[in-house]
Amino acid sequence: MSCVAEPASPAGAAGQRFAAGSPRVLVAGATGFAGALAAHILWRHPGFELAGVTGRSERGRRLDDLYPRYRVPLQIGELDVEDCDGLDAAIVAYPHAAAAPTVGMLRERGVRVVDLSADFRLSSLASYQQWYGVHPRPELLGEAVYGLSELHRDRIAQAGIVANPGCYPTAAVLGLAPLARAGLIADVVIDAKQGISGAGRVFDETTHLSMAGENILPYKVAAHRHTPEIEEQLALVTASGGGSGEQLAIQFQAHLVPLDQGELASCYVTPTRTVEPALLAALYAEAYDHEPFIEVAAEPPGVREVRETNFCRVFAAADAHTGKVVVLSAIDNLWKGTSSQAVQNLNLMFGLKETEGLQ
Amino acid sequence: MSCVAEPASPAGAAGQRFAAGSPRVLVAGATGFAGALAAHILWRHPGFELAGVTGRSERGRRLDDLYPRYRVPLQIGELDVEDCDGLDAAIVAYPHAAAAPTVGMLRERGVRVVDLSADFRLSSLASYQQWYGVHPRPELLGEAVYGLSELHRDRIAQAGIVANPGCYPTAAVLGLAPLARAGLIADVVIDAKQGISGAGRVFDETTHLSMAGENILPYKVAAHRHTPEIEEQLALVTASGGGSGEQLAIQFQAHLVPLDQGELASCYVTPTRTVEPALLAALYAEAYDHEPFIEVAAEPPGVREVRETNFCRVFAAADAHTGKVVVLSAIDNLWKGTSSQAVQNLNLMFGLKETEGLQ
Amino acid sequence: MSCVAEPASPAGAAGQRFAAGSPRVLVAGATGFAGALAAHILWRHPGFELAGVTGRSERGRRLDDLYPRYRVPLQIGELDVEDCDGLDAAIVAYPHAAAAPTVGMLRERGVRVVDLSADFRLSSLASYQQWYGVHPRPELLGEAVYGLSELHRDRIAQAGIVANPGCYPTAAVLGLAPLARAGLIADVVIDAKQGISGAGRVFDETTHLSMAGENILPYKVAAHRHTPEIEEQLALVTASGGGSGEQLAIQFQAHLVPLDQGELASCYVTPTRTVEPALLAALYAEAYDHEPFIEVAAEPPGVREVRETNFCRVFAAADAHTGKVVVLSAIDNLWKGTSSQAVQNLNLMFGLKETEGLQ
Amino acid sequence: MSCVAEPASPAGAAGQRFAAGSPRVLVAGATGFAGALAAHILWRHPGFELAGVTGRSERGRRLDDLYPRYRVPLQIGELDVEDCDGLDAAIVAYPHAAAAPTVGMLRERGVRVVDLSADFRLSSLASYQQWYGVHPRPELLGEAVYGLSELHRDRIAQAGIVANPGCYPTAAVLGLAPLARAGLIADVVIDAKQGISGAGRVFDETTHLSMAGENILPYKVAAHRHTPEIEEQLALVTASGGGSGEQLAIQFQAHLVPLDQGELASCYVTPTRTVEPALLAALYAEAYDHEPFIEVAAEPPGVREVRETNFCRVFAAADAHTGKVVVLSAIDNLWKGTSSQAVQNLNLMFGLKETEGLQ
Repeated sequence: MSCVAEPASPAGAAGQRFAAGSPRVLVAGATGFAGALAAHILWRHPGFELAGVTGRSERGRRLDDLYPRYRVPLQIGELDVEDCDGLDAAIVAYPHAAAAPTVGMLRERGVRVVDLSADFRLSSLASYQQWYGVHPRPELLGEAVYGLSELHRDRIAQAGIVANPGCYPTAAVLGLAPLARAGLIADVVIDAKQGISGAGRVFDETTHLSMAGENILPYKVAAHRHTPEIEEQLALVTASGGGSGEQLAIQFQAHLVPLDQGELASCYVTPTRTVEPALLAALYAEAYDHEPFIEVAAEPPGVREVRETNFCRVFAAADAHTGKVVVLSAIDNLWKGTSSQAVQNLNLMFGLKETEGLQ
Repeated sequence: MSCVAEPASPAGAAGQRFAAGSPRVLVAGATGFAGALAAHILWRHPGFELAGVTGRSERGRRLDDLYPRYRVPLQIGELDVEDCDGLDAAIVAYPHAAAAPTVGMLRERGVRVVDLSADFRLSSLASYQQWYGVHPRPELLGEAVYGLSELHRDRIAQAGIVANPGCYPTAAVLGLAPLARAGLIADVVIDAKQGISGAGRVFDETTHLSMAGENILPYKVAAHRHTPEIEEQLALVTASGGGSGEQLAIQFQAHLVPLDQGELASCYVTPTRTVEPALLAALYAEAYDHEPFIEVAAEPPGVREVRETNFCRVFAAADAHTGKVVVLSAIDNLWKGTSSQAVQNLNLMFGLKETEGLQ
Repeated sequence: MSCVAEPASPAGAAGQRFAAGSPRVLVAGATGFAGALAAHILWRHPGFELAGVTGRSERGRRLDDLYPRYRVPLQIGELDVEDCDGLDAAIVAYPHAAAAPTVGMLRERGVRVVDLSADFRLSSLASYQQWYGVHPRPELLGEAVYGLSELHRDRIAQAGIVANPGCYPTAAVLGLAPLARAGLIADVVIDAKQGISGAGRVFDETTHLSMAGENILPYKVAAHRHTPEIEEQLALVTASGGGSGEQLAIQFQAHLVPLDQGELASCYVTPTRTVEPALLAALYAEAYDHEPFIEVAAEPPGVREVRETNFCRVFAAADAHTGKVVVLSAIDNLWKGTSSQAVQNLNLMFGLKETEGLQ
Repeated sequence: MSCVAEPASPAGAAGQRFAAGSPRVLVAGATGFAGALAAHILWRHPGFELAGVTGRSERGRRLDDLYPRYRVPLQIGELDVEDCDGLDAAIVAYPHAAAAPTVGMLRERGVRVVDLSADFRLSSLASYQQWYGVHPRPELLGEAVYGLSELHRDRIAQAGIVANPGCYPTAAVLGLAPLARAGLIADVVIDAKQGISGAGRVFDETTHLSMAGENILPYKVAAHRHTPEIEEQLALVTASGGGSGEQLAIQFQAHLVPLDQGELASCYVTPTRTVEPALLAALYAEAYDHEPFIEVAAEPPGVREVRETNFCRVFAAADAHTGKVVVLSAIDNLWKGTSSQAVQNLNLMFGLKETEGLQ
């Protein structure tokens, strides 16, 4: 049942806080950073029952043995999609291309999915093929909704597949959306910095403390897969404000810096017309004053301010010297950038309060 | 003698390696990070005698008590410009505005100076006044040469005052100079990241490990004092290549990231015309193949690669998607960005081999 | 009212979660690390109302401006003990010697206090005078209960003054208590390591990232003030098990290591008789199997496993080679070592569930 | 020639500084942290020619591609012991058990070896077998000299095989030797802390920055392989001072802390008789005042003070409260703890000045 072939150990299963009758959610791929954190959040969530955790490795170990700090006392089982009785939803935390087939099988059994991979983020199949290769289940693309909660709330609520955004697009698009909606972006450079957890549970030169420590490392110059995702979403936002909706070629560059969790997108916008500070303030206030998870900061935000939260903290300033607009957008790459946003989307999908289990 | 009122303790003075007859150099302001490192490098330099170290605080303590790792066994004395017999040069590591009067007095006594402050970096007095306030000794501006060794080698060799560049301008201008000289920069965004040592021996929220650690902190948005310095130098380089020499308004943004030493300038250039990869490679090879301290990297450079060296490591790529050119320039902010470049300038000033004492 | 002269700004006061009629608690000294974290925990606590935050500096600023991540939207006011109507309890986070007079005044007005300083930790006045100097309010010592929740639960529930333990004694005594109670400790060396937050909101060479980073720094050799506190508590535990209760001179040594929060006490016990692994396992199981916040680990615990929690994670092993017993005890120095233990004590004092607001 | 099957690229070979006729040294196993650093030091050494670098992986890559910061422009070749003409010495940086066969083959061809593995550190074969298993070349044990330079200088100068000490024994034995020689150690607890580089170029949970960062991790409780090495050496030192030479069972515990390089051994000695501070000072002064690489510190030493140096910094204090002696010994685990001590030993073996190339 619940898609877990080897039943999760009942031994340690005390401690969940869900109310009776809560939707039952599986985390598939719980051994990676993103899946494990999603399981941690769901385990403490009053509105969901964490039905099980599965992994392609580490089966039989307990998740709190792999991630002691998360204290999820469930055994890692094997995903068995043939037996999904009673499962309402799944968070799928698989690598790109590996996710789509599983998402498809879950959908066929009526399970709603938040997919953390890139497989359903791009609405354009051509774009996917260019950046990722052959898509395993292209026929499902039309069913997927892009899971940037603040932008697509209504459609997420109805979706069968929610494509959870990449962490870089989350920070960048939330930072730039008020400008895009007002048709103010003529050109933009996005310089993003991220902690080492962004590399995931990957063991190599980029994550070894003696190599990643005391370093600042730019990577994937002029070729980051998150670029088309940002371009597509900015075009959608621009169109939503009455703009042309044509995609703008953006300059995106990622860097690894020596911390664990945290991400800052520094965005440099050449505006379509002069932007006065008062207009800027009004645009961001209008866009975000009622958002529970977006804070418009009075000072440039450090990523510590949002560590281990679902908050995105945004700051915008007009530079009188250059005429450009500087936007700084800080998130926790594993929380709002990945796993807590997945839960925010689940809240939307099941009609719970959007902030439930996330404060 | 040697401008040190309280004579440096002879007790621990064994260990210097200079040849007899070497120029005698004082470090004024040796208690800060920059001055202390300059003293460390000079102490081991075969071509200079470290004549003394002075400070406005910590007098009487030994420098190797304050900075054990640098192992300079000299007592911190008081600067006495009335008695500079036998002193050939000084590195002055004072804060902005505090430096100029001391530099002036040293010059009046025939001492050649490398000044680490901003007081002589801008050739335009108006620009200085706009960013720093009243200049204490404006009449000396004409005597100063900007100490970016690779760009102004010949004039540095003759200079009485060398204005050592800021660390951000060092990384940025070295990264962009080949493009500027070819007249290729129509617009540029410079996003710089720096370790906490860039804040200096300052004790506050920006340097406390429990606040600076696990953080990425943008600061001085749309208002960094290094902007005019970069603009002036890029204009000079452009003019040297036959360009107009008119200053371009650049977008510069600084960030603190949680490491000790290291700095990366990520530069995003909108070129005046299409730049092919082959042209880019040729420009950087021509500019830097014979430079002893500049490495044109085949991969995006991490700042670890230049830690505690005088090297600047540069990488340039044309982005076919946007048409922009991405330039990444890595230095150690305390070494090439400050103190070892000061010694490189001293080598030039006294006719030593440029690399002496720096490898 | 509530002892705050300048009333806490009502503007941002939305967001607290307490039930109507909950005890009202003040945090005095909320600008330091310990007080700010206590305010953060209380703000989210369903069983207490955070009545105000006061500080001796930073008055008028909002606490979420000083500590954005803690998101407590209250203004920092001035403590006014003349007007404590309606206040049930206070956490006093003042330096040693500064705390006792305030604690006394609060007690005189019927307010129950958890004191984070050392002023009431030692039952022996002579011992206090030896390590800290003159005690400002010695007559109150008899009223104070040592706030190691797991050891003194019943007395804490009735106490007017709870002396919250130091972080080192918390880790060490919890780690050693099962051995002490069984009369097994003939001699013990405690080697403790702690993150930089242990130094508090202090700005100097020990906290500057460029000095504290990439360092391991032993301090206060053969003279740490936490020694008598550990000795007194171990003697109490020994006596509770039927032992002599005579104090043992322990060897305690502290070290700063470059992380933010986390503390490990490595304890090396020369036992009074041979200790077999089975006995060890039985002693720790008996002592801690029913403790909600103490985990007996199967593997040596890393401090990450308890970061930002009220857990103490303990591991004990008998070394057949030396005959000694090695005990490793990990806590978060700011949480269980300070502020969350203060709230655990408040839960006990007001008859709430001991784990309330701490999971 | 020189034992390198694929000849090291001559292309980048400019830059070495050795004098004509210098001994030629190979580094076998140059792809790990220890071998790479040894190559770095030898490349800049005026008294040795770095004849080649070999590795069991990464062949054909250049060492400065793997370790840019070390700037050794040699290609990684394959070790070919059949062709060792003109090779005078080798540093062998292989894992335990893998080293001995290669060391044996090099010895048969007359090459002198500094072996960085544990294969020749223990004079007792039984002890080796207990901790490491079958010894591949036990007949060579008698030929090996333990390479703690300060203790065995004369025998190292004549040795065919120098067994370079482990990093923990280096710090611990240098810290304790003055007490051992005076017969003062009745019992000792050694609590050692080390940066992540101590785990080597190993990619797993113990080195990933998101797991090793913000952590303090004890490991190998009551079972560290460095224990017998320390016990054997302390017994030798004790015997050299006229003591019994019987081995004492020591309590040794290792911890990983989140920095790159650095190691502190905190030693807690129960003395055989009361130790007065004056005696302590005299013992350490006598032992180390003339040692070029050992500094007796006036304050507890932080490991930053010895970072990237061959220094060992020692501090000793008598604790009047407990009667114990606390000894703190700081080294850089990769330098004095491994690679620079290997070069110090090479200096001794070839009659160079002991400090050559190490300052």
